[in-house]
Amino acid sequence: MKFGIIGTGAVGKACAFATVMRGCASELVLLDRDRKRARGVVTDLQYGAILSLAVTVIEGDYRDGHDRVLSTGTYLDSLRFQFHLAKHLGVSPASVEALVIGEHGTSEVFLWSGARVGGMPADLAIACRDVAKVRQAVEQDVRYANITIIEGISASQLGIGMVPARIAEIVLRDERAVVPIGVFNPKFGVTLSMPGILGRNGVSRILEPAMSEEELQGLQRSADTLKAASRRIGALVDA
Amino acid sequence: MKFGIIGTGAVGKACAFATVMRGCASELVLLDRDRKRARGVVTDLQYGAILSLAVTVIEGDYRDGHDRVLSTGTYLDSLRFQFHLAKHLGVSPASVEALVIGEHGTSEVFLWSGARVGGMPADLAIACRDVAKVRQAVEQDVRYANITIIEGISASQLGIGMVPARIAEIVLRDERAVVPIGVFNPKFGVTLSMPGILGRNGVSRILEPAMSEEELQGLQRSADTLKAASRRIGALVDA
Amino acid sequence: MKFGIIGTGAVGKACAFATVMRGCASELVLLDRDRKRARGVVTDLQYGAILSLAVTVIEGDYRDGHDRVLSTGTYLDSLRFQFHLAKHLGVSPASVEALVIGEHGTSEVFLWSGARVGGMPADLAIACRDVAKVRQAVEQDVRYANITIIEGISASQLGIGMVPARIAEIVLRDERAVVPIGVFNPKFGVTLSMPGILGRNGVSRILEPAMSEEELQGLQRSADTLKAASRRIGALVDA
Amino acid sequence: MKFGIIGTGAVGKACAFATVMRGCASELVLLDRDRKRARGVVTDLQYGAILSLAVTVIEGDYRDGHDRVLSTGTYLDSLRFQFHLAKHLGVSPASVEALVIGEHGTSEVFLWSGARVGGMPADLAIACRDVAKVRQAVEQDVRYANITIIEGISASQLGIGMVPARIAEIVLRDERAVVPIGVFNPKFGVTLSMPGILGRNGVSRILEPAMSEEELQGLQRSADTLKAASRRIGALVDA
Repeated sequence: MKFGIIGTGAVGKACAFATVMRGCASELVLLDRDRKRARGVVTDLQYGAILSLAVTVIEGDYRDGHDRVLSTGTYLDSLRFQFHLAKHLGVSPASVEALVIGEHGTSEVFLWSGARVGGMPADLAIACRDVAKVRQAVEQDVRYANITIIEGISASQLGIGMVPARIAEIVLRDERAVVPIGVFNPKFGVTLSMPGILGRNGVSRILEPAMSEEELQGLQRSADTLKAASRRIGALVDA
Repeated sequence: MKFGIIGTGAVGKACAFATVMRGCASELVLLDRDRKRARGVVTDLQYGAILSLAVTVIEGDYRDGHDRVLSTGTYLDSLRFQFHLAKHLGVSPASVEALVIGEHGTSEVFLWSGARVGGMPADLAIACRDVAKVRQAVEQDVRYANITIIEGISASQLGIGMVPARIAEIVLRDERAVVPIGVFNPKFGVTLSMPGILGRNGVSRILEPAMSEEELQGLQRSADTLKAASRRIGALVDA
Repeated sequence: MKFGIIGTGAVGKACAFATVMRGCASELVLLDRDRKRARGVVTDLQYGAILSLAVTVIEGDYRDGHDRVLSTGTYLDSLRFQFHLAKHLGVSPASVEALVIGEHGTSEVFLWSGARVGGMPADLAIACRDVAKVRQAVEQDVRYANITIIEGISASQLGIGMVPARIAEIVLRDERAVVPIGVFNPKFGVTLSMPGILGRNGVSRILEPAMSEEELQGLQRSADTLKAASRRIGALVDA
Repeated sequence: MKFGIIGTGAVGKACAFATVMRGCASELVLLDRDRKRARGVVTDLQYGAILSLAVTVIEGDYRDGHDRVLSTGTYLDSLRFQFHLAKHLGVSPASVEALVIGEHGTSEVFLWSGARVGGMPADLAIACRDVAKVRQAVEQDVRYANITIIEGISASQLGIGMVPARIAEIVLRDERAVVPIGVFNPKFGVTLSMPGILGRNGVSRILEPAMSEEELQGLQRSADTLKAASRRIGALVDA
């Protein structure tokens, strides 16, 4: 039940905060190249932590290596999709099934064909005649969320801090929960975000959601975008 | 944040326990025709409650009436369906979408056509060739769960106690969560269990899940069964 | 994060329930000589557990031995003391410091001299002139709690089920929390209940609370009672 | 179960975060003169909030007035005292009773005479011969915590954000918990921090902790400091 967080900037700080308050770790180790910064976050957090489940917050160093990498992928994008679709439907976001997959970026794919609430397809549940308009409005809200956040508080930090706290909890508790997450996908030959069964040993199985023809093409484009980016990074590394 | 529970038998006791531990109520009122019984539960529960979020547990009386009725319907049946399907899939039950609707009884309908995990249809996710066999095994596990419970501890109580604690939490917090719940269904002309948007004012909208032709027929049969039962009760009341 | 509970009667059942709902274990193993009973509790509990933090509940067997024993001692008695004193003071029981130590039985000692609320001695905080009368009323409420419970629901189960769930959480999280707990006390030469620092390795230190002369004598009598009982058991075992 | 937070700077943001994660509010309203800032925090927080208990986070305006003021007083100072004393004792901070009272500032008073762990006076529990040295080290750690925090992350924000979230929870749940809190103290004729019984109607009773002669004098000096500051502000307001 020991968590480590590398980096204590705005996101790392929010992730540490969320981890303390979820109560999922009994020991939380914070690391930062700027040791004063890590020490500041530890010192500040440790007092308020007394009001939650017992947790020890300490500064760590880089000796404890890591050999497994997961990316939050489109987990936050999916939460945003759920949120804005739920607003149109007048329901709790947690009750909406809605996935964003592929790249965590502009080529990401909204799986509208599979979006549902209470087992009912979202398109049917939307109380508005012009479903296409609602789809557009929801996608726009998701895509422009960051702008509102950046205009207000410089950088997205709270939402994206809460996601890895939940991911770590899933791993630590070996939950085998299914969440959209970035892992290498052999079918597409690149790391992209798809729902996966997540537990102590990482993602044990990728689950491919039902997709419309159009969505599948979108995903292929997203994979191509990621492969091209990957090649550019490879070229840089080789150079 | 005041909850009342009527009846402090095995189920009421479990429901009171779950309510204290969820921390969703700040005042919990227990009622029972057998006042000694209610007093016993209150006395026993109030000490352990100190270890959870602050809650006052008191004995009440019947003067506080109620004017709204919800039935847990097939909420627990759906949890059981999720559980046993999740076991076959090797995932967390909370990650499985699987609904049982209609009667909370033998005519209930398993919505296999809409069962999914991570957006993937359950039938495709099942790693076994003989999907029909898995379906049958899962349904059997759900239907016979009560027998195992009754053979072991005389009566189902813990699971069914936790469900109304969660329902009350949804209502109190005005969550607008979507859960399978028993309300009057104008389309079928009878009270049956379907996913509904639940909040402070009860169920504001029934959501009709996608169904195969066979499932729809099953639901109609379930509605007919409930109507017949309803007529029998009406006849008894009139007599 | 694996818990085991031996015995699934009323207390074991409540303890399993509390463990699921605290969210402190990710795996809960239930054992009972009556395997049907254990299976019944597991089956019943596993469905409702979906509404809490992910936990796997399974039936176990006796092969996993245990080599360390803690007794809940006077933990529940202390919670009862806190509760009834808090009622007189009109405050939350969790804000009252009040200990019962010694035997978990009739010779137990109420540490009135150290009872406090917000750092204020309880005797001064009691708004009644006749402090002796309040003391007597509180002690009586604590001592007779069981009778009310037994008259209502046959046996104390809910409070006493919640206590070991909390103790196991303290051990699993290595909290080093200080709670009244039954361990061998070298000073008195017998196992009795005193505040101890509890963590992964059991009780690392017994803390002796401040006591009046009278309380100290009471504790000595309680130790003598326990030693006599211990000798009687030893004689039986030898016989 | 509606909370409002005025100001969404570093502290307001942390308080909003803590409120979402405690699950104590079902509706959280954020206000800031800089509306873009409030909107940024709301937008960022609302997505991650889906992973916690259902809560609606919205931007508000100043029309909803407030007519009651509490100050966090020395609540955080007391948590810091608990923390550093606990570290010396090798126990969980939540198990230590230690109060700081008076001014939230340099004249604050550490109530060493009443500091205890498991009912044992802290001075006796300290495993070091030179108790005076430990006292000095603990006080220094508490007094200089802010410097470490400021050097690392510019300003204290996480701990002080968690405290009002807890205070609001106490009020909303009408817990009648006893916490050090800043309210007008008729005995000293000024607003200073002392343990008080806190519930829906604010502080219903101030509890005066036991104090040594020296501590009492310190408290009088702290009250004098606050009165002098109060007079200076009054003179400014009158001018």
